[in-house]
Amino acid sequence: MYVTHLECPKCKSRYKKLSQFCEKCSSPLLVRYDIKKIKSTFSKEKLLTRTYNLWRYKELLPIIHTKNIVSLGEVITPLIKLNALGKHLGFKNLFLKDEGMNPGGSFKSRGAAVGISKAKELGVKSFVMPTNGNAGAAWAIYAAKALIEANIIMPKNAPLITRNECAISGAKLYLVDGLINDAGKIAAKAVKKYGIMDASTLKEPYRIEGKKSMGFEIVEQFGWKTPDVILYPTGGGVGIIGIYKALLELKELDIIKKLPRLAAVQAKNCAPIVRAYESRQKESVFWENAETVAFGITVPKALGDFLVLEAIYKTKGIAAAVSDEDILEYQSLLAKNEGLFICPEGAATAAAAHLLLKEGWIKPNEKVVLLNTGSGLKYPDTFKPNPPILGVNDEIVI
Amino acid sequence: MYVTHLECPKCKSRYKKLSQFCEKCSSPLLVRYDIKKIKSTFSKEKLLTRTYNLWRYKELLPIIHTKNIVSLGEVITPLIKLNALGKHLGFKNLFLKDEGMNPGGSFKSRGAAVGISKAKELGVKSFVMPTNGNAGAAWAIYAAKALIEANIIMPKNAPLITRNECAISGAKLYLVDGLINDAGKIAAKAVKKYGIMDASTLKEPYRIEGKKSMGFEIVEQFGWKTPDVILYPTGGGVGIIGIYKALLELKELDIIKKLPRLAAVQAKNCAPIVRAYESRQKESVFWENAETVAFGITVPKALGDFLVLEAIYKTKGIAAAVSDEDILEYQSLLAKNEGLFICPEGAATAAAAHLLLKEGWIKPNEKVVLLNTGSGLKYPDTFKPNPPILGVNDEIVI
Repeated sequence: MYVTHLECPKCKSRYKKLSQFCEKCSSPLLVRYDIKKIKSTFSKEKLLTRTYNLWRYKELLPIIHTKNIVSLGEVITPLIKLNALGKHLGFKNLFLKDEGMNPGGSFKSRGAAVGISKAKELGVKSFVMPTNGNAGAAWAIYAAKALIEANIIMPKNAPLITRNECAISGAKLYLVDGLINDAGKIAAKAVKKYGIMDASTLKEPYRIEGKKSMGFEIVEQFGWKTPDVILYPTGGGVGIIGIYKALLELKELDIIKKLPRLAAVQAKNCAPIVRAYESRQKESVFWENAETVAFGITVPKALGDFLVLEAIYKTKGIAAAVSDEDILEYQSLLAKNEGLFICPEGAATAAAAHLLLKEGWIKPNEKVVLLNTGSGLKYPDTFKPNPPILGVNDEIVI
Repeated sequence: MYVTHLECPKCKSRYKKLSQFCEKCSSPLLVRYDIKKIKSTFSKEKLLTRTYNLWRYKELLPIIHTKNIVSLGEVITPLIKLNALGKHLGFKNLFLKDEGMNPGGSFKSRGAAVGISKAKELGVKSFVMPTNGNAGAAWAIYAAKALIEANIIMPKNAPLITRNECAISGAKLYLVDGLINDAGKIAAKAVKKYGIMDASTLKEPYRIEGKKSMGFEIVEQFGWKTPDVILYPTGGGVGIIGIYKALLELKELDIIKKLPRLAAVQAKNCAPIVRAYESRQKESVFWENAETVAFGITVPKALGDFLVLEAIYKTKGIAAAVSDEDILEYQSLLAKNEGLFICPEGAATAAAAHLLLKEGWIKPNEKVVLLNTGSGLKYPDTFKPNPPILGVNDEIVI
């Protein structure tokens, strides 16, 4: 175990023991490692004989004892070259990292795998979590495996299937007639009243350690090189913050030299990061009346907004918003051209990539990675076909 | 490429060129390989540097040119030890192979990956397929990637999400007011009239080659050893036939010595294989009024029934039926104890394993593998929670 301390990215305070967030400035905390020590023992070759999932990057994960690892069969998710769609849109090197292949069908499993494993290691018995659906579902299934009690609060408009995942795994599930911020307020009250763990986004420092494994995998899948651009659908922002953290750690380890430009993609009707980026702000402002088909990124104001914006500025990245119409169109394009049935959030990155290509921000020959955060299977109501119904004696016409 | 010919498992006729089924006795055909030649070149160590998916077993797959491989990012699906559920039920070595982790969320992707790749290699432009949903969905997404036209016919009661997968990928989708056998009749008419490829179960010999990779993976995941029992939810039967074929090939290659006992699991309201097994028949009889929550195994009479029964008899296996009530109960047990949200078909194997343990057919210390054929995400209506709805100012009670 190479963890040295938790650090506040705002005021730089250091914590040796677990703290939920910075006691001085209330900022989320980041886990820091003894990179020098890792450098002296780590080699890429060592990975060859390790498990083919995120646990292979154990030097840069916060779990002390292997026995505390809670696993539901994680895999290295595929990085797929999109030749047909790339050609159609004008890209020579377009890729998709398919997080729909995680247990539970979304990238949230990475955060839950490491977050729950660390919670188990710390002796946590119960937690509460406000969620837009997928994170709650992921934490519920990992909590079931770890025998930890899960209290999940999600907006009543969150994807229906995520209710099933929580409830069937034995989590205590509540819906709220509001948005994720409203769920967050109810969770905060429960934390105060019952002293249970607060598993809200960025209020525990370990889920980001799981999500950063997306960054490690992308770099390993490109043969320990970096692509030019990574586009990430951005709600709470932990995914893009995690990838940025992974890239910085790999740079410090001298494994990579150059960082890819990180692009945060939002929906036009909920684009606080884009608005902040356009006026070069360090933080975002609460977005009123947020609503989009990409429900997972309906986050009016993210606690880690300043970290997302830092990741954008420091990598010469960008923030871009796309319409719900475009999201649905590119979701179909991905399925028709590539056989990939992805979630609306993931489809937003394809729409944004095309926009940024047309604007010249992306060059046609650059290596571009679309991060698809989840499976289209989790959104059965987004696309509704109306096929003909035949009688048993009918024929089809081809 | 080590394929020598196609063989009829009934009358042993041999075919050098592609034939859809045996011209003499109408039986499905099996692909045969030059095992002696493979033996002289293959070694387990060679696999270490190959891709971590089914294509690593290339010597035993029918694709000639790598360029014809149609991939949607397949993975080696996880084999998960079920310690908590095992203890609860009385097993010391209970495992689950999670096929929900395939692209499209079901084991059908394996058949589609190899079936469509071979269709592409053979120059197929269009096919028709009757399906209970998941196979059609899998063939539709792989066909999209391969630029092959897919005509899919499924019962109107097939899982709704599989309609979405077909339609969004650009397949021509039809529903039929009947069961899969009715869809099959309509497909047969289209094959006759338009001369397109018949992709019905076991009417093309290559999908089984994809499905057998489950058998290779299980053996590799057990350190090139075999478990004692594999339980498989059985509808059309290609999964269990495929695993049996894989095991025979590995035995011929001297990689394994002993075959596991194969158990075909069916639902009580559609159990033609179980009925045939109980009276030691070689073939099954059409099951009238078939209906079960495990929709994927609602197959009243499988074309390959004689091959399923052979796999059972030759491995000293068994066929067992479980009730819909049990299927739903064990689906919840899996989720609550192991965090695994699996499909009803997969849950049927857990119910059957427990039954066979209680009957003494399985011993408590035997290594038992439950084959979960798909993700619970594909069945949003099987489990319906009814969580409380809170106002934004409410509190939760823990």
